[in-house]
Amino acid sequence: MKRIETVEEMMQIARQLRREGKSIGLVPTMGYLHEGHLALAGAARKESDMVIMSIFVNPAQFGPGEDFETYPRDLERDCALAEEAGVDYLFHPTAGDMYPQDGGIRILPGPQADVLCGSSRPGHFDGVLKVICKLFNITSPDRAYFGEKDAQQLAIIETFVRDFNFPVEIRRVPIVREEDGLAKSSRNVRLSDAQRNEAPAIRRALECGEQIFLETGNAGETLAAVRRLLQKIPGAELEYAELLEYPSLKPADADTKEIILAAAVGFGSVRLIDNVLLPVKETAPCTK
Amino acid sequence: MKRIETVEEMMQIARQLRREGKSIGLVPTMGYLHEGHLALAGAARKESDMVIMSIFVNPAQFGPGEDFETYPRDLERDCALAEEAGVDYLFHPTAGDMYPQDGGIRILPGPQADVLCGSSRPGHFDGVLKVICKLFNITSPDRAYFGEKDAQQLAIIETFVRDFNFPVEIRRVPIVREEDGLAKSSRNVRLSDAQRNEAPAIRRALECGEQIFLETGNAGETLAAVRRLLQKIPGAELEYAELLEYPSLKPADADTKEIILAAAVGFGSVRLIDNVLLPVKETAPCTK
Repeated sequence: MKRIETVEEMMQIARQLRREGKSIGLVPTMGYLHEGHLALAGAARKESDMVIMSIFVNPAQFGPGEDFETYPRDLERDCALAEEAGVDYLFHPTAGDMYPQDGGIRILPGPQADVLCGSSRPGHFDGVLKVICKLFNITSPDRAYFGEKDAQQLAIIETFVRDFNFPVEIRRVPIVREEDGLAKSSRNVRLSDAQRNEAPAIRRALECGEQIFLETGNAGETLAAVRRLLQKIPGAELEYAELLEYPSLKPADADTKEIILAAAVGFGSVRLIDNVLLPVKETAPCTK
Repeated sequence: MKRIETVEEMMQIARQLRREGKSIGLVPTMGYLHEGHLALAGAARKESDMVIMSIFVNPAQFGPGEDFETYPRDLERDCALAEEAGVDYLFHPTAGDMYPQDGGIRILPGPQADVLCGSSRPGHFDGVLKVICKLFNITSPDRAYFGEKDAQQLAIIETFVRDFNFPVEIRRVPIVREEDGLAKSSRNVRLSDAQRNEAPAIRRALECGEQIFLETGNAGETLAAVRRLLQKIPGAELEYAELLEYPSLKPADADTKEIILAAAVGFGSVRLIDNVLLPVKETAPCTK
């Protein structure tokens, strides 16, 4: 595995790989790798000649007061894990190299960014789109791998690729979980023991919601039950629980083919998210 | 020369060309080709294995009340001219194929778009950036060719490519002029005989400004003279004349290395633009 520290070198390598006819799989991450990231790398490894993993804690997607400074980092450990997962190039640029100049051009998401995490993180998805556009251009991948855990990010990136014709296939990779059901997250290490014990209740609430929705097709009833359960988690504060059409993130209607049931919960300063993606059966009752 | 009508086919061809190691030169146009466009194609021909010219009157960059409907079009004539100029692929998609869906994601230019043409054409450069991003992704060019006539567009695209790492070199091609100095433009055909006779005065005013600036280095004096000359053109209405740093399009200061002296003038419903780009001599007096 080769470590690449500059944008220029990464672009040269990507250009050379394209010239050699090699297919490229990109796994964009913010590092502090866990099994979720390694599942992305594994999926990329299976279908790409060359796997590029980026590790970049992107300042542009953190708002004021968010956890950019305290976001966990461990590059040496990440390198060992990435190499083990079959990554060929680990791209870890500095913020100065990624953002040397700023002419003020911005990529603004549409209404998909006004709901779920977007409503409490203004500007977050601007920063995501900026860094994803840059990473796609720097690494020119055939395919890029994203986890379903950040489902809103995935939906917005799929829309960006579709509407702006990026020559990249977006691959969705299912959420990887701890044994007790908690979604793997780099932020989990910052939970206290007590919080860590309670956190799997998020997943249980969503599973319960899934069951209610599959049986009743009733969005209101589903949400009411999920919210009740999430509000009862000791030490947790419910930020949102929503049921929306996926990937448009509009309210579900009669034409909806897939829905997302998503929640965000705060444990002190640690914010956890989880979701389930569900196909809507054609015979299902009204989802309103 | 092959004519390509769909985005999908163009993307497949570009992918295949990349696989074969062919270098690609892109010439984006709105058609109704004149010698200015052919100069772009000629520059592309010289240094590319394959030249792609796009012809697309982009609705996204016309505002309400602008001349999208009346913008001159002649695809058959354009095809003959493009073929003669050595274009390999003429890409002329429909608006429906370029914009089949819209998830609402927008690319917003920064302060560069608030001056010159941008100040009277709100949203124009959003539309330009959208279509350029799409064309770059669809054709994956090594180099793309733009005329200095649309100098503000060129400055914004150079900034977009730089700040978002598009793997494309932007080539500036000098303005091609009629014998009497009028800058070639697809819109020139819509001038009346009388207007056509007066229009070269735009160029003469800018040349006069160039001479004053080179001699005095005084932006205020230069602009006053240019504006006076432009206001005296019979049947013309001065929209703007500005002297700015290039390509930032900020007011020039002591560190400025290149300036643009640009003007827009209306002849009835026909809007003409022209400019000169000037290096600033290190020994020049204050440009304020």
